[in-house]
Amino acid sequence: MKTYLGIDLGGTNVRVAKVTRDGIVLAEVKRPSLAQEGPRKVMDNMMEMIREIPGYTECEGIGVGVPGPVDTINGKMLMATNLPGFEQYPIAAELTQNFNMPAYVDNDANVAGLAEALVGAGKGLPVVYYVTISTGIGGALIVDGKVVSGKHGHAGEIANIIIDRNREKVNHLNIGAVENEASGVAITRKGKALFGDQIRHAGDVFDLAKQGNPQAQSIVDNMAYDLAVMFSVIAHIADPWMFVIGGGMMQSKDVFMDKVVANFKNLVHVPMRDTLFETAKLEEPGIIGAAMLPISHGN
Amino acid sequence: MKTYLGIDLGGTNVRVAKVTRDGIVLAEVKRPSLAQEGPRKVMDNMMEMIREIPGYTECEGIGVGVPGPVDTINGKMLMATNLPGFEQYPIAAELTQNFNMPAYVDNDANVAGLAEALVGAGKGLPVVYYVTISTGIGGALIVDGKVVSGKHGHAGEIANIIIDRNREKVNHLNIGAVENEASGVAITRKGKALFGDQIRHAGDVFDLAKQGNPQAQSIVDNMAYDLAVMFSVIAHIADPWMFVIGGGMMQSKDVFMDKVVANFKNLVHVPMRDTLFETAKLEEPGIIGAAMLPISHGN
Repeated sequence: MKTYLGIDLGGTNVRVAKVTRDGIVLAEVKRPSLAQEGPRKVMDNMMEMIREIPGYTECEGIGVGVPGPVDTINGKMLMATNLPGFEQYPIAAELTQNFNMPAYVDNDANVAGLAEALVGAGKGLPVVYYVTISTGIGGALIVDGKVVSGKHGHAGEIANIIIDRNREKVNHLNIGAVENEASGVAITRKGKALFGDQIRHAGDVFDLAKQGNPQAQSIVDNMAYDLAVMFSVIAHIADPWMFVIGGGMMQSKDVFMDKVVANFKNLVHVPMRDTLFETAKLEEPGIIGAAMLPISHGN
Repeated sequence: MKTYLGIDLGGTNVRVAKVTRDGIVLAEVKRPSLAQEGPRKVMDNMMEMIREIPGYTECEGIGVGVPGPVDTINGKMLMATNLPGFEQYPIAAELTQNFNMPAYVDNDANVAGLAEALVGAGKGLPVVYYVTISTGIGGALIVDGKVVSGKHGHAGEIANIIIDRNREKVNHLNIGAVENEASGVAITRKGKALFGDQIRHAGDVFDLAKQGNPQAQSIVDNMAYDLAVMFSVIAHIADPWMFVIGGGMMQSKDVFMDKVVANFKNLVHVPMRDTLFETAKLEEPGIIGAAMLPISHGN
């Protein structure tokens, strides 16, 4: 079976793996990414890791997932907050030159979404929208097994979707942006405002809600409605077969997801009510999805 | 050059044309669609028209644009308000059987968007979002020259996008749905509420605004902001290279479009500010886009 090299390049660690077409990880190497030492060091380190993978020369292509928006056509990062010096650095071109195989770059949410669409929860479906609800909120549109990254690599930057324009200004995002109202950070902020420093993270708010605290329950109910508005907007724009939902907040999905789906059904046209909501199921969507990038480009 | 049969099947009229790959109409026939006489009559009438097109047997395929959501995989309408009896009627299968060539069906907004993406304002761009602002508001997502219709044929049903949830309930659409706040019907409704029956259509409100009436100007300003929220939401979800905008309201684009774009730039991440906004440029996107359906499916 054909194999591919998947690389998850983060600000802290980098992982390189050899992955089959079906998403099975055959070999994996992990090291610090040395991000603060600049692109030359990061690239050399990463290429050394590729050479440690048994039979790497027989792979069909390389895919790299990176934190931040990407110019996928030229295989370069557009913003690189966590990888200093990587803005406009020709990652794909350098890998292709050194390993004589096609190489592609995309951002980590797109890559995770691709993995879930090709070999995860959304396997085989023509249109999948991947949503990650974690400290922040991100997403990815996958059509016919290919990530739609968009002109600026910003397709899936759903954190900034306005779900209610009558909220307070929180940060650089839009007023009422869903990330400021329904992400882990947002729920923590709202919890602290009501309950003070006993709230360390969103989980503490969820625990209070489960214990019957009405104010905590109200935070959860609002979150469920805000997320439903976001999902309904995406549904009217791209009508996916399935929303695949990942991210740390899904560990508490029993607290809010049923309400999200119930609200969603009231916010879409009748036929759309059977849109599927599934939890992301891959353990390592980052490297598996990176390895899927060459496949999604026809390799 | 290869040619295709494009059919625009409406509740009132049906048009059949022979169109080149480049979108040139070589021959065209137009007749009443006989919608009230039922599918058998409508289909026979339409097939008779095809046979009137010189050299129709040499065409590579047939595309049909219809009013309403479509099961594009099976080539059937899912709802057929203006074409009684056509719900689940096998339009594509019957055409293929009778003319021995591939046939496809999609809704009229998707078809118009496809035409604009392939041979119109968005020619050659990887991701185009088509928006029509008319009595209602509709849209279409086109990726790599193919319409993304979605699971329920509802991709592009952007009329129902919530742009401000703190509005009044108007009809079956969501509270604050963009069609109820910024379409031709919405502007007429808002104009009548302020100025009474001197307002016959949105154009009358625009005229008052141009004459310096501050209340009319306020309606226009709110419309421009509401549309900008809609465009920003689409941009964060699919990040198109270009929005192609059609529909009757664009005859008054000088009144509101500059404001829409200025507001949009304030509602998206900085790199997205150069997203293009172009007016639809084809005279007959309905039949040209219908003829493009077989092309977009690889024929």
